Amino acid sequence: MKILLVGAGGTLGQAVATELGVRHDIVRAGRSLGDVRVDLRDAASVEAMFRDVGDLDAVVCAAGKVPFAPLADFTEAKYLEGLQDKLMGQLRLVHAGTSRLRDGGSFTLITGILTEQPIVAGACASMVNGAVEAFVRAAAIELPRGIRINAVSPNVLVESMESYGPFFRGVEAVPVARAALAFSRSVEGRQTGQVYKVW
Amino acid sequence: MKILLVGAGGTLGQAVATELGVRHDIVRAGRSLGDVRVDLRDAASVEAMFRDVGDLDAVVCAAGKVPFAPLADFTEAKYLEGLQDKLMGQLRLVHAGTSRLRDGGSFTLITGILTEQPIVAGACASMVNGAVEAFVRAAAIELPRGIRINAVSPNVLVESMESYGPFFRGVEAVPVARAALAFSRSVEGRQTGQVYKVW
Repeated sequence: MKILLVGAGGTLGQAVATELGVRHDIVRAGRSLGDVRVDLRDAASVEAMFRDVGDLDAVVCAAGKVPFAPLADFTEAKYLEGLQDKLMGQLRLVHAGTSRLRDGGSFTLITGILTEQPIVAGACASMVNGAVEAFVRAAAIELPRGIRINAVSPNVLVESMESYGPFFRGVEAVPVARAALAFSRSVEGRQTGQVYKVW
Repeated sequence: MKILLVGAGGTLGQAVATELGVRHDIVRAGRSLGDVRVDLRDAASVEAMFRDVGDLDAVVCAAGKVPFAPLADFTEAKYLEGLQDKLMGQLRLVHAGTSRLRDGGSFTLITGILTEQPIVAGACASMVNGAVEAFVRAAAIELPRGIRINAVSPNVLVESMESYGPFFRGVEAVPVARAALAFSRSVEGRQTGQVYKVW
């Protein structure tokens, strides 16, 4: 399969490339490095990426930023940052990418445990993840030509605990290789409309 | 209790007013009618409403619009319509209303069955509902002074089947009075971070 991996340079993206790269051709996309550059916040950038890479069997996203702040400090602008990046950015991948996917191809988006298990300062992350997961269930029944769509919802990663540890005290972090496996399950399986929880 | 009911003029809002009005003082808010006017898409309008109504024991929302369209026809502008209205509109209620709620007061927001059970043309509705539900779980652990927050997720209403019927074939519609009961459960109970499903 020819798989476009967005966010290939991140901790998760690198692990997904390792997991899928053994069996498939990976086209690496990222904001600042990779085979092709993309800014998920910019629809034109997403469309240009798809023109560059040509036909695909799968689109995998391991990218998407959201701001963290105490609930009382959240402003409209801060919420919109998260909505424009991790939510609308992934929707841009789906809308611009559908015509580039071969029949039966797939999208695999990224959410996270905060959809269901909130932490302090994570209201925007929870909100965005919840939106992406519900969108995945909805899009699954409308995508054409057998195209599938799933989300991977990892817990905090062992490899990210140095920076995120203080936000996730008492949480059983998962090795990034386990999260990467869920991407393989989505891409190489046949289910659609699923949220694969890695926690 | 003194309860602000946003969307008081709608099918659901009227039923909530009937259910809660027997035991409480209801301040009716709406886009075009009610004791006070509000446009949820406009932060200044939401803030003005809270200044007008003074201190409250509960804020209940039975309002929020989302566009419906086939997935392939959704544009960024269409998604943003739904995000700005039913999602950000309800977040505006929470952010502007927190300081107006007495200790132990509550917010009750509105979502709907499409979070979990999608229909064709409902991708934006699903996405927005998913965002609101995850936000409710997250905000519940951060709101100050014992202030609670829940969501009510009704199925399509029996009373709305004349207009929505074609979208919900085979779905067991619920009487609006049942949906209204869930608002009472949220306002008059003591739970927080819950999504009360009426389906």
